[in-house]
Amino acid sequence: MTASKLYIVGLGPGPAAMRTPQAEAALEAADDLVGYGPYLARLPERAGQRRHASDNREELDRARLALDLAAQGRTVAVCSGGDAGVFAMAAAVFEAVEQGEPHWRTLEIEVVAGVSAMFAAAARLGAPLGGDFCAISLSDNLKPWEVVLRRLRAAADAGFVIALYNPLSRARAWQLGATFEALREVLPRETAVAFCAAIGRPDEAIAITDLENADPALADMRTLVLIGAAMTRAIPRPDGRPWLYTPRSVAERA
Amino acid sequence: MTASKLYIVGLGPGPAAMRTPQAEAALEAADDLVGYGPYLARLPERAGQRRHASDNREELDRARLALDLAAQGRTVAVCSGGDAGVFAMAAAVFEAVEQGEPHWRTLEIEVVAGVSAMFAAAARLGAPLGGDFCAISLSDNLKPWEVVLRRLRAAADAGFVIALYNPLSRARAWQLGATFEALREVLPRETAVAFCAAIGRPDEAIAITDLENADPALADMRTLVLIGAAMTRAIPRPDGRPWLYTPRSVAERA
Repeated sequence: MTASKLYIVGLGPGPAAMRTPQAEAALEAADDLVGYGPYLARLPERAGQRRHASDNREELDRARLALDLAAQGRTVAVCSGGDAGVFAMAAAVFEAVEQGEPHWRTLEIEVVAGVSAMFAAAARLGAPLGGDFCAISLSDNLKPWEVVLRRLRAAADAGFVIALYNPLSRARAWQLGATFEALREVLPRETAVAFCAAIGRPDEAIAITDLENADPALADMRTLVLIGAAMTRAIPRPDGRPWLYTPRSVAERA
Repeated sequence: MTASKLYIVGLGPGPAAMRTPQAEAALEAADDLVGYGPYLARLPERAGQRRHASDNREELDRARLALDLAAQGRTVAVCSGGDAGVFAMAAAVFEAVEQGEPHWRTLEIEVVAGVSAMFAAAARLGAPLGGDFCAISLSDNLKPWEVVLRRLRAAADAGFVIALYNPLSRARAWQLGATFEALREVLPRETAVAFCAAIGRPDEAIAITDLENADPALADMRTLVLIGAAMTRAIPRPDGRPWLYTPRSVAERA
């Protein structure tokens, strides 16, 4: 029997061309793939490999299943979209390790980094993350809304570009609107806002607007919302969308 | 003559196994590679391809050279370590576009996202970025130190995990120490701090400590410094380094 191993793999934004060879090797080595159904569906079938597809709200259960399989001597790949460490499966697995069987701590675990949704989206827009930036998940089943609001205000006030993950869900419709409202109190109305969905995939959709006109209806569950700093600017182009970029330099008192 | 194109390519942290096929294709298509010398040195030589290696402080000059070559009809790849949009070449190129020749705005430019240093480092540590997080460059030739300090305090106070880029340079030695001092006023002394250098490369070096004992001497120019949130915790392992992770959930009043 080969030694078991648990990989936590960042699949990138979707296309195989945006997935690292390291991630491909982990997927190929695995006896079992564990992940959210739509992510697994994007991967080629391999003979003898088992798939354990689950709903996207069952992260801890999925992590425990993967750890249990690895503890049985199997090589397991837990599959995450984007980078595995960014609002994805890596934290859930280590949470399960901490709370779970003592022998899970002896398992060989390797997190395989990937191209995150926020960086893939930024690349399509230009260089909106050119300065300091932050990432905030709006998912409020994991933290109180007051914490989210406090982080949004602190980040905007201090001049960070903000990447918003999980802007909407079936159970959650008002948070993105409340986010824009809170940010309008801190940032200029003309601050750039970009809605980026399905980056690199055939149904890719990008909308650029400003904070004044940012409409939560432009987002769905899959959307990454980027909110510029006051310094973020657009470079108009004769053809096509403007480039968005945030200058690397900050003037005195910015 | 083929149409010219300017790629801005994220090479990832170093090893080819952490570079996307999309990045490899851009490198292969290029007539000219433009970038910081040590990054170019990691890439295989290709017959007929020209290399323009430069010092790491000449980002705008390098961007203008690349734009000029593309405007002459050549296919150019500007090479960045990690992700091209994160304290790397993408912002410099768009800054040069904005300030430069009007016809540069008609060039075809494609930013190719990569695995960033912060996510590669996080993957080796466990899941330290499991909650909300931010990235701050300590490079103060681009922004006043007061701005850096304000962002550090705001981020720590609001509960973000912090990834520090450019912690030191030849010209700059005191900033990282001043950073730890400022953060000790906001965060518990036992907050996890990790120093990560050359991730994925043969000389990879990782040191985990806490804010009380964080010593700037543990960093050099290549080091990514991760500072946990108050919630970030270590999972001890019988063998090897502890795993670091930040729980996804935040309790009331966190």
